[in-house]
Amino acid sequence: MPARSALAQHIDEVGLIDQHVHGFWLTTGDRRRFENALNEANTEPLAKFDSGFDSQLGFAVRNHCSPLLGLPRHSDPQAYWEYRSQLSEAELAGLFLPAAGVTDWLVDTGINGVADVAELSRLSGGRAYEVVRLEQVAEQAANSPGDYASAFEDILRRRGSAAVGTKSILAYRGGFEGDLTEPAPTEVALAAERWREEGGTRLRDRTLLRFGLHQALRLGKPLQFHVGFGDRDCDLHKTNPLYLLDFLRQTGDTPIVLLHCYPYEREAGYLAQAFNNVYVDAGLSVNHLGARSADFIARLLELAPFRKILYSSDGFGPVELHFLGARLWRNGIHRVLCDAVDRDDWSESDAIRVVDLIARDNAARIYQLGDVPG
Amino acid sequence: MPARSALAQHIDEVGLIDQHVHGFWLTTGDRRRFENALNEANTEPLAKFDSGFDSQLGFAVRNHCSPLLGLPRHSDPQAYWEYRSQLSEAELAGLFLPAAGVTDWLVDTGINGVADVAELSRLSGGRAYEVVRLEQVAEQAANSPGDYASAFEDILRRRGSAAVGTKSILAYRGGFEGDLTEPAPTEVALAAERWREEGGTRLRDRTLLRFGLHQALRLGKPLQFHVGFGDRDCDLHKTNPLYLLDFLRQTGDTPIVLLHCYPYEREAGYLAQAFNNVYVDAGLSVNHLGARSADFIARLLELAPFRKILYSSDGFGPVELHFLGARLWRNGIHRVLCDAVDRDDWSESDAIRVVDLIARDNAARIYQLGDVPG
Amino acid sequence: MPARSALAQHIDEVGLIDQHVHGFWLTTGDRRRFENALNEANTEPLAKFDSGFDSQLGFAVRNHCSPLLGLPRHSDPQAYWEYRSQLSEAELAGLFLPAAGVTDWLVDTGINGVADVAELSRLSGGRAYEVVRLEQVAEQAANSPGDYASAFEDILRRRGSAAVGTKSILAYRGGFEGDLTEPAPTEVALAAERWREEGGTRLRDRTLLRFGLHQALRLGKPLQFHVGFGDRDCDLHKTNPLYLLDFLRQTGDTPIVLLHCYPYEREAGYLAQAFNNVYVDAGLSVNHLGARSADFIARLLELAPFRKILYSSDGFGPVELHFLGARLWRNGIHRVLCDAVDRDDWSESDAIRVVDLIARDNAARIYQLGDVPG
Repeated sequence: MPARSALAQHIDEVGLIDQHVHGFWLTTGDRRRFENALNEANTEPLAKFDSGFDSQLGFAVRNHCSPLLGLPRHSDPQAYWEYRSQLSEAELAGLFLPAAGVTDWLVDTGINGVADVAELSRLSGGRAYEVVRLEQVAEQAANSPGDYASAFEDILRRRGSAAVGTKSILAYRGGFEGDLTEPAPTEVALAAERWREEGGTRLRDRTLLRFGLHQALRLGKPLQFHVGFGDRDCDLHKTNPLYLLDFLRQTGDTPIVLLHCYPYEREAGYLAQAFNNVYVDAGLSVNHLGARSADFIARLLELAPFRKILYSSDGFGPVELHFLGARLWRNGIHRVLCDAVDRDDWSESDAIRVVDLIARDNAARIYQLGDVPG
Repeated sequence: MPARSALAQHIDEVGLIDQHVHGFWLTTGDRRRFENALNEANTEPLAKFDSGFDSQLGFAVRNHCSPLLGLPRHSDPQAYWEYRSQLSEAELAGLFLPAAGVTDWLVDTGINGVADVAELSRLSGGRAYEVVRLEQVAEQAANSPGDYASAFEDILRRRGSAAVGTKSILAYRGGFEGDLTEPAPTEVALAAERWREEGGTRLRDRTLLRFGLHQALRLGKPLQFHVGFGDRDCDLHKTNPLYLLDFLRQTGDTPIVLLHCYPYEREAGYLAQAFNNVYVDAGLSVNHLGARSADFIARLLELAPFRKILYSSDGFGPVELHFLGARLWRNGIHRVLCDAVDRDDWSESDAIRVVDLIARDNAARIYQLGDVPG
Repeated sequence: MPARSALAQHIDEVGLIDQHVHGFWLTTGDRRRFENALNEANTEPLAKFDSGFDSQLGFAVRNHCSPLLGLPRHSDPQAYWEYRSQLSEAELAGLFLPAAGVTDWLVDTGINGVADVAELSRLSGGRAYEVVRLEQVAEQAANSPGDYASAFEDILRRRGSAAVGTKSILAYRGGFEGDLTEPAPTEVALAAERWREEGGTRLRDRTLLRFGLHQALRLGKPLQFHVGFGDRDCDLHKTNPLYLLDFLRQTGDTPIVLLHCYPYEREAGYLAQAFNNVYVDAGLSVNHLGARSADFIARLLELAPFRKILYSSDGFGPVELHFLGARLWRNGIHRVLCDAVDRDDWSESDAIRVVDLIARDNAARIYQLGDVPG
């Protein structure tokens, strides 16, 4: 067996900044919940003839997560489920989170019922920070007394000062096509009144969504966008990030982070080259592509400048995903960069430097995480 | 030479269900007809400076079909044509159809002038079933006496009861964008009256196309859609299957099969994950991509769950295509899955199981072909 | 070390026709100019935290261009810049142009301030020809006395008779979507009057753009379109070449060349199959994809017939790009075709023939360059 290359060793050992992640489950569930969580796009329970295990993600779980449960690689679904069920979700987190090799977790707290920032930190042994979801701020403002716009600004200022960035799920609330300029105060007030009358939940009003984006730009901290692949509540073709072109022309210096991006990763990479403040990331996609994720990671290394690419897992629910994102990213970037080095297209020292940029240096810079040790 | 792996052997030997195919030529033609048939997209005769052989499909024919004519692989176009011309189309079918290793052919009978279901069965030695083209049923209804809607329902019920599924070429008749809800009976009656006055051929009326789709949903048998790549009569960008999202939300349990899908295979795979009743297939594309088809097959194995992927050749015209689709699919899936197994991303037994799902088990399930021996 | 294959040797030695290129810099500039030129999409100066060297193109320059400056491969940016600065731009051209192995340069003269056709010929030792940019002809016509349409026709006839083709940057002036039929003379006259009143610069008037295209069709020489990837002045999603479908249906026999095409190379390849007069090319994209360009070249070899694919660098500014386009294309086509030959998907003699078609024969045919020696 040949000695492992310096590049391979570095990829295995680099401490990651997972720049977009959610909480993991805290409560015990049945196998059906677990299998449904292996399918991202479907919003209904899986059909009886189907199994969440029979997918790239399912195969990747059985391959890479089994050893952490004491099982051989590729163990069958039944064995995997049996071993997994013997542990609580917190015990599973204690196994999978440290194994991810993540030093810093940036947590989108917009979904309730899962672990919070403090728990992610405690069970992983790493640092954790909040990313504030704009649509949640909007709901809080709708349910606050007085002027909506002032309430939104106050809440965002307060929550934002303790957070490292903001997040928008505009993709799920009508998509990117159309006007995304800042609305006038009177328009905002009217729209807020209407929304409050309707109950002030699940914001889809375009005026208020636009208002929130421009408040986030003023905050100046990185603004993350869900882009592309997600559940079918979003019309995938309306989440092509190229529809953000006009908006991006108004965003100044605030870093804009395009998340997930499947199947628009090449368009997203173009935007990262076209705008000094645009970044791309492969979270969610890498987990769901499993054995096919190296090709996705390779395409993200096309037009996007290397100082504009970030790592995330987008883990949510089963804590396997927080680990698996890191495992698959390390495997994928290894495959892509070793290939480039083997062909002498890249030098090994350049490859190691690019790994550091994507794994942590770019994220540390834009989220101002300070000189965090890797 | 190392022993062939169990996976390689299984891929070579598995009996396929070709779930979307047309008839082959029955009448003798000249070289010009043959070369034009190697180009799918062009609706005009090939230019004088061009040759249908100078394409991925042309190279694949010369490579994989030559041995069946007693020629060496990569024989030149002139030699290939000379040997081919010495046989009748029926004799060619007797060579190429059995060599495909297909046990069941599902035949779209919407194009006349080629072999029918019975001839496909007789010359291949396999079973063959009909898939009813909805636009043909519409023409039959337009030319029937009495109420159009009743005539359509009667014909579809009668033909559908003996068939395994239906097929729509909406992609060629305006594309997927726009309203695809069920029209009201009075709208249908008016539209039918107008179309009958115009002659009742080549249906492009949106109301009647929508009516046909919803009748097919009621029949409950799998409904196939031409998606993406085809001849230039279809506006390729209007056949992005994501435009079907709203329609798919209305389709209940009726299996919807997205055919061909190039260059939208990643979007189609997303839909197969998002809806319990959506399936994808790589027919037509695999033949035309030739030596490049493995990458296409790999991308179809991204988001689509493994129980939602089907095999077809979409063979039409030269009977080489009925064989070549199978040969290229076997080569492509071999390349993709051996790579995954060699890297220990997948186990070999998992790979073999996925081959069976795509090659026949998924199709046998949704078309209810019974427990057909492979 | 095994003997180099006949295919590898042929790819290294074939003389290229670079069918779309611009002039290189003639005046000395600073490092900032150079780094900005390594980023195509951004129209602003690169951010302080960024470096034009940290991209696929930057890595490719350091890898492949360093040896021509007497530096080792992968030399660092500082060393590269220091060595480069010791030479004038003309001296650099004297190094890089001959090393490209290009026999014929087809020069889009639409951008001023760089080397002209004669200088490209003189410093490369090759032949050079003009490609006339339609939007420049329009500006010349706007600033001519008398009727706009007549002036445009006169200038195009005069300049076109000495040129090998025309070029449109409609992609940058509103994109491809919408009506592209020929406007009526009265519409043209009205639009021209309006534009002249506004100053007659940077044409964006749709009527006059349409007029220019149809004049170019009448000229009958190949008409090149910028497609896809470029700077952010073009809305990338409006440059999908499928929006040209209706226009292409009106273009008769005039060759239409789709340039660059990223990320729409598969759509472009489809059009090359669908229309006898449509061609595709990978210029610009290949340079910017660097180590990833082989995959792009491979995808361009999917649906496009082999007699419809062309080579170009799209070099502009740093003369490294005129060389690097050739180097990366040779490396990429080598990787793709050797892979096909090694798997016995293609024969080696077929591969060599396809190299000749793309490298020069197709271009020589459509630009009527005569029986030029390679």
